[in-house]
Amino acid sequence: MLWLMDLQPLDHQGEVPLYRQLFEQIADQIRSGKLARGQKLPATRELAGALGLNRATVAAAYEMLETGGLISGHVGRGSFVTGRPAGNEGLDWEVQLGRHEAPASVALNTASAGKQWISFAVSRPADALFPLDDFRGACAAVLSRDDLAEILQLGSPSGFEPLRRHLLESARRDGLVRPGDDLIITNGCQQALDLIGRVLLRPGDAVVVEDPVYTGLKNLLVGLGAHLVGVPVETEGLDLSQLRRVLDREQPRLMIVTPNFQNPTGTTLRLAARQAVLGMAQEAGIPVIENDPYCELRYQGQALPALKQMDQGGRTVLLRSFSKVSFPGLRVGWALGPKMLIDRLRQAKEASDLHTDQLSQAVLLEFARSGRLDAHGKHVRKTGAERLTATIIACREFLPPGTWWTQPEGGMNLWVRLPKPLDASNLLASAQESGVTFLPGRYFEVSRRNPGALRLSFAGLEVEQIHSGLKILGQIIRGELEKAAESREPVPALV
Amino acid sequence: MLWLMDLQPLDHQGEVPLYRQLFEQIADQIRSGKLARGQKLPATRELAGALGLNRATVAAAYEMLETGGLISGHVGRGSFVTGRPAGNEGLDWEVQLGRHEAPASVALNTASAGKQWISFAVSRPADALFPLDDFRGACAAVLSRDDLAEILQLGSPSGFEPLRRHLLESARRDGLVRPGDDLIITNGCQQALDLIGRVLLRPGDAVVVEDPVYTGLKNLLVGLGAHLVGVPVETEGLDLSQLRRVLDREQPRLMIVTPNFQNPTGTTLRLAARQAVLGMAQEAGIPVIENDPYCELRYQGQALPALKQMDQGGRTVLLRSFSKVSFPGLRVGWALGPKMLIDRLRQAKEASDLHTDQLSQAVLLEFARSGRLDAHGKHVRKTGAERLTATIIACREFLPPGTWWTQPEGGMNLWVRLPKPLDASNLLASAQESGVTFLPGRYFEVSRRNPGALRLSFAGLEVEQIHSGLKILGQIIRGELEKAAESREPVPALV
Repeated sequence: MLWLMDLQPLDHQGEVPLYRQLFEQIADQIRSGKLARGQKLPATRELAGALGLNRATVAAAYEMLETGGLISGHVGRGSFVTGRPAGNEGLDWEVQLGRHEAPASVALNTASAGKQWISFAVSRPADALFPLDDFRGACAAVLSRDDLAEILQLGSPSGFEPLRRHLLESARRDGLVRPGDDLIITNGCQQALDLIGRVLLRPGDAVVVEDPVYTGLKNLLVGLGAHLVGVPVETEGLDLSQLRRVLDREQPRLMIVTPNFQNPTGTTLRLAARQAVLGMAQEAGIPVIENDPYCELRYQGQALPALKQMDQGGRTVLLRSFSKVSFPGLRVGWALGPKMLIDRLRQAKEASDLHTDQLSQAVLLEFARSGRLDAHGKHVRKTGAERLTATIIACREFLPPGTWWTQPEGGMNLWVRLPKPLDASNLLASAQESGVTFLPGRYFEVSRRNPGALRLSFAGLEVEQIHSGLKILGQIIRGELEKAAESREPVPALV
Repeated sequence: MLWLMDLQPLDHQGEVPLYRQLFEQIADQIRSGKLARGQKLPATRELAGALGLNRATVAAAYEMLETGGLISGHVGRGSFVTGRPAGNEGLDWEVQLGRHEAPASVALNTASAGKQWISFAVSRPADALFPLDDFRGACAAVLSRDDLAEILQLGSPSGFEPLRRHLLESARRDGLVRPGDDLIITNGCQQALDLIGRVLLRPGDAVVVEDPVYTGLKNLLVGLGAHLVGVPVETEGLDLSQLRRVLDREQPRLMIVTPNFQNPTGTTLRLAARQAVLGMAQEAGIPVIENDPYCELRYQGQALPALKQMDQGGRTVLLRSFSKVSFPGLRVGWALGPKMLIDRLRQAKEASDLHTDQLSQAVLLEFARSGRLDAHGKHVRKTGAERLTATIIACREFLPPGTWWTQPEGGMNLWVRLPKPLDASNLLASAQESGVTFLPGRYFEVSRRNPGALRLSFAGLEVEQIHSGLKILGQIIRGELEKAAESREPVPALV
């Protein structure tokens, strides 16, 4: 009954009878479309209670509304809005769309105008690295296949079977597959997360996510009506004591963890912490969604076992993707987990979009099976390592004391905390004027505000751009710090 | 509070105190996992009222549950299940998945084993018709583009911009675009329907669909929690008087109509009926979703204007797709409608899977722009006309008197009603034994049962297969009719 908020207090001392005031207010809302046709009005007793009115007053107002053709009462079912804005032939889409909250939109002007800028804003691979001839070679192999017509025909919601088998066998070799596991191909990790949310969550369910976390995950979960509970993630992955508190207090339905090079912080969950996360999920009796699109992008340090591999309880669902290590424009990822869940994801996938595009599945299978993916992976990791190193060196060289940043061992992103009292959103305007852009921390906030933080996505930039970009950023931060220091100087008393 | 259904009546005359009986029943449900951790129990007063018990009885049962560590009470928030099945290390996925109903699954053994059969079961184009060299030519053109790397890079949730512009311009030429309209590319019509459901519907909302209707649409809407209201569709599209009754009675949130060659019936909505549907939608103040994947597949008769074109009120959203007229394995469709809605669909699309595969979008754009799509369309329509004619001729020749079928002017499907008392599901087993398969009407039922109906998908079969398949089907129907007649013969009295 959100709309009750919109009712103005009635004038109990005025000349207009209360029932008439109430009638006018509700009628206005129906005529303006605020109250949509088909919406149920509260029972007279409820509304009277909520407004502190006599029930007869409300009943009189409803009677007027009904006489005016604005509502219609059904015995035992209540009263419904039937009237509509007068003289409005067209459909009022604002009313139609008003029942779902629109997600907060991320300003993507940073991306579209990114050509001239040094953009640390978008977490994606550099297209200059794409091995176009290898890609053409993989396409040529697919196009000359005898079964090309089958690839172009309607496919299976589980995925293109040869690719599915390839991924399952490869996961088996890596020790990721438990007895009874199955695998489904999705349009990247994003769709796997969406399908999981659709089969496991109901509106109002609490879901544990890292804080800060990838905007696309926030929007997805909020869109599903979930209640997001953030657990701080910074230097060494999830804050475990916070995680324990949150599991006890919020009784979430599931937990979504990005163990490798988390977006936006770039941090990795240590081995012991992985074990602890699994133990806590076991105590809480909830599934763990292991969102792992970056696993192939380790530039230094030793690879750690996946949660899926360590999990003895069959509670982990592993999500991986070709996007981050090959071509993001081809939307192919997968989910590996217990068959009972994968069966339900397949049904949800079929309802959602029948199946993933088969041309891209066949091309990526060829790209992988021919060894081109491995070769490209080596190249991407070598370049990524150079860019990560350049980013950290430039941070040390150009960012003023009091600035702090994470130390990723891979991935595409690094997280920066500005010295107090700087606000990254305020900084952005000056940075963009100087040709540099990034995403302020607020895009990634879950339960805690992060005004002083920002994400630097380095994977798409060349070493020189990283150097120049951080030099400019360093100057701007210093400038803002000086301004902040000036404005904090005590104002002398007027004498 | 669905789980209340599972409580057995308490024994008011027995020796075990009522509070203890209640405790045992709830504890069992927690231990068995029927009541999941985190689930909220009803307030003691509510439960007492529902079970006709004293409130103190319920409070005592809750106290025992809390003492036993099975539930936990929070002042002002209520009691929550905290216990879990004892000694169960692994996660019980049945419990995790138990909160959403699994959709009814359609037996697809008909498709997988379809090679040896004459399969009227799958509504898809024949892959033998795919113009593979033209497809290779379109791919080659894309692979030699200067901006290939951009195509492989992360794209826009709105779609590949050159394709989006092409579709919008083409729609404009056809008079389909109103001022303020916009277009978004989706993974076929199926995803457009999914996104529309996600931004316009809430669980419990009534949605008007044709009855019978495409199984994928039923599963999608049921998955979104919608209440499906079927309006009969058979000879001439929707039954308009039923539609009017349903709009008045159910106050639906939206209406989904397939005006051309509806799946499964193959019927087309006449011009006057299109106008009437728009008028009724206007009176009801609801949007019309015009699901139009088959529009290019008209084999005879005159093309009718789209609802989108006739609509003066901006309430129609037009969904079209490349799938049915080119390659279903490439998942590219689109939605055209008011910008306010398209903006929200774009946000939902981004949350759902970021964007549609760009390789296929670029290939289909090339396929369309080069004239290959038009050439292929002509070929598909010519073949489709032959197959539709063959189907109708074979129905006349082989199906016994009392069988009735629709007269489609295009598309892929024809709807058959068997003579009474035959049941199409029973018939299926005998048909499959003889090497013929189809989908019985029950897969398409919405509000009315259709035991005597079945769908014949003819577009993927050659004329000879259609002839042989219907000959076999005719024999089986005659055989079943004879059996039915025998079993109805009066049994002579025993003397």
